[in-house]
Amino acid sequence: MKKLINNPNNVVEEMIDGYVKAHPTYIKRLEENDRSLVTARKTTDNKVGILIGGGSGHEPGFLGYVGDGMADGVAVGNIFASPPPAPILEVTKAIDKGAGVVYLYGNYAGDVMNFGMAADLADMEDIHVEMVLTTDDVASAPIEEKEKRRGIAGEFFVFKTAGAAADQGYNLGEVARIARKTNEFTRSMGVGLTPCSLPQTGEPSFEIGDNEMELGLGHHGEPGIKKVPMDKADNIADELLKHIFADMPLNKDDEVAVLVNGLGSTPRLELYIMYRRVEQVLKEKGIHIYRSYVGDYITSLEMGGCSITLTKVDDELKKLIDHPVDCPMFVQK
Amino acid sequence: MKKLINNPNNVVEEMIDGYVKAHPTYIKRLEENDRSLVTARKTTDNKVGILIGGGSGHEPGFLGYVGDGMADGVAVGNIFASPPPAPILEVTKAIDKGAGVVYLYGNYAGDVMNFGMAADLADMEDIHVEMVLTTDDVASAPIEEKEKRRGIAGEFFVFKTAGAAADQGYNLGEVARIARKTNEFTRSMGVGLTPCSLPQTGEPSFEIGDNEMELGLGHHGEPGIKKVPMDKADNIADELLKHIFADMPLNKDDEVAVLVNGLGSTPRLELYIMYRRVEQVLKEKGIHIYRSYVGDYITSLEMGGCSITLTKVDDELKKLIDHPVDCPMFVQK
Repeated sequence: MKKLINNPNNVVEEMIDGYVKAHPTYIKRLEENDRSLVTARKTTDNKVGILIGGGSGHEPGFLGYVGDGMADGVAVGNIFASPPPAPILEVTKAIDKGAGVVYLYGNYAGDVMNFGMAADLADMEDIHVEMVLTTDDVASAPIEEKEKRRGIAGEFFVFKTAGAAADQGYNLGEVARIARKTNEFTRSMGVGLTPCSLPQTGEPSFEIGDNEMELGLGHHGEPGIKKVPMDKADNIADELLKHIFADMPLNKDDEVAVLVNGLGSTPRLELYIMYRRVEQVLKEKGIHIYRSYVGDYITSLEMGGCSITLTKVDDELKKLIDHPVDCPMFVQK
Repeated sequence: MKKLINNPNNVVEEMIDGYVKAHPTYIKRLEENDRSLVTARKTTDNKVGILIGGGSGHEPGFLGYVGDGMADGVAVGNIFASPPPAPILEVTKAIDKGAGVVYLYGNYAGDVMNFGMAADLADMEDIHVEMVLTTDDVASAPIEEKEKRRGIAGEFFVFKTAGAAADQGYNLGEVARIARKTNEFTRSMGVGLTPCSLPQTGEPSFEIGDNEMELGLGHHGEPGIKKVPMDKADNIADELLKHIFADMPLNKDDEVAVLVNGLGSTPRLELYIMYRRVEQVLKEKGIHIYRSYVGDYITSLEMGGCSITLTKVDDELKKLIDHPVDCPMFVQK
């Protein structure tokens, strides 16, 4: 796989370097760890800090979501690997204003361990931390074991509502409650068409035939539910939605926020064709779409495919979904 | 190439259908032509209309740039093909408020013919039209034949400044002057790593070896300057910038807006590594970066590679670059 890189061992450092230089009014590096970044904007006093993080290669996730109305800081890991506790702790200390910090991250073993350790260290410095895991991927474990599920693109809605809540002055417990509620009301499922390759190894992230796709693929290439022959976009959307509806029953007149997320190399044209079908199916069921997002929100380098996310929204979540955002990779008026 | 589509002959209709359903508060279809779209927002009285257009497959170009502060309407063509005169004329009539309409499009034979014919037809209906071609691709013809050059990602800056000027109340001649000035001060050059394939034919858009890249590739796969072996990102950036500087000399303390544009399947991580080098080189030359854009702004389906665009900015252009924008695929506060 051809890549626009220099030394494969330096891709994360060089990306961060370019990112900070491109957006100096938005984000800055902290001093101890090269991969600890915080907003360059002045935030409100007593605001609860929002800390996000995880592996690189998911851009705009995660550093792209540091900015007004979303996260205050990010700890950046290697490609598809969790950041260690040190940068997480450094960001925690930098963004805590006495009101505590909420950690938002996907449910992966490395992240669970490292964010947990960082929270323990923060506790020793009397910083209150709440941890919220996202577990939106319905394909990754049965509903009875929801706590084992991976976080995929639905993380975007957790960042969005929790970030808005913190910006609107909610306290630590309330911001964490919003994040958990959003996760509880969020379901995603993806389909993988073509793998990406890691810069250091050049190995494909998963194996797939020329006329196959993998339903329920995880966003590091983790196995999904099954490999099936390629199909039409409408049928793929129907299949993904079927799994989502089975997992989170929605009733007529329920309202949802929708995300059709590209995994990296899928053209917007295709994502909108997928969205078209999602809208048709929801309409047939009498489910109202409150707000839609279509594009690359949480990617896997140049992986091909997409995921569909539905978040059931009530009045409280709607107000937070509508809250303005100003980040380098995502702006909402 | 696997694609998330239904019938390959319907991809443009279905994309537009999904797009309008996803963003109903931003954009709407006109009645006569399925591919005539205009802003759903109320615009100022006597505002000069901004009409953009061209082939599909370049999303966010072009329909993604209809919205506040950019274009008022778009005529959408087939994949990589110009829209015919009829939808262009229909959009023209819909967005003309008596102050005239500016057509902004890339310098391609089909577009030149169809937008020209639409302008003639508009003239018969007493609508004043100014046409501005973008010709930013330095690799497509020598400077002596600048009028033969293709428009590539630099179109984004032409849309940005002309859209802002119209929004700020500039008259028809002034908006056209701004668009031409921006084009005059804009240079781009791209590099192609991997082709895309057209939904209807499945054929790759250009041929390239496993360890090769094409310098100066056009955004429909038109031949560039030469095929060369893959190289490091820094060397590629240096090479692209060398051609740009040779074409548009920049002096110490000049200011530029920078766009590092992905062609479709190139991860943001790589685009920021490219940006990192662009910033280094400009800094060494004492050229100041006024504002930066890094991401997928004008794509070629799932083509791999990127382009670099520099626009020399003065006080007038800076004010327009800074003007806020609210479009479904591009928001700037």
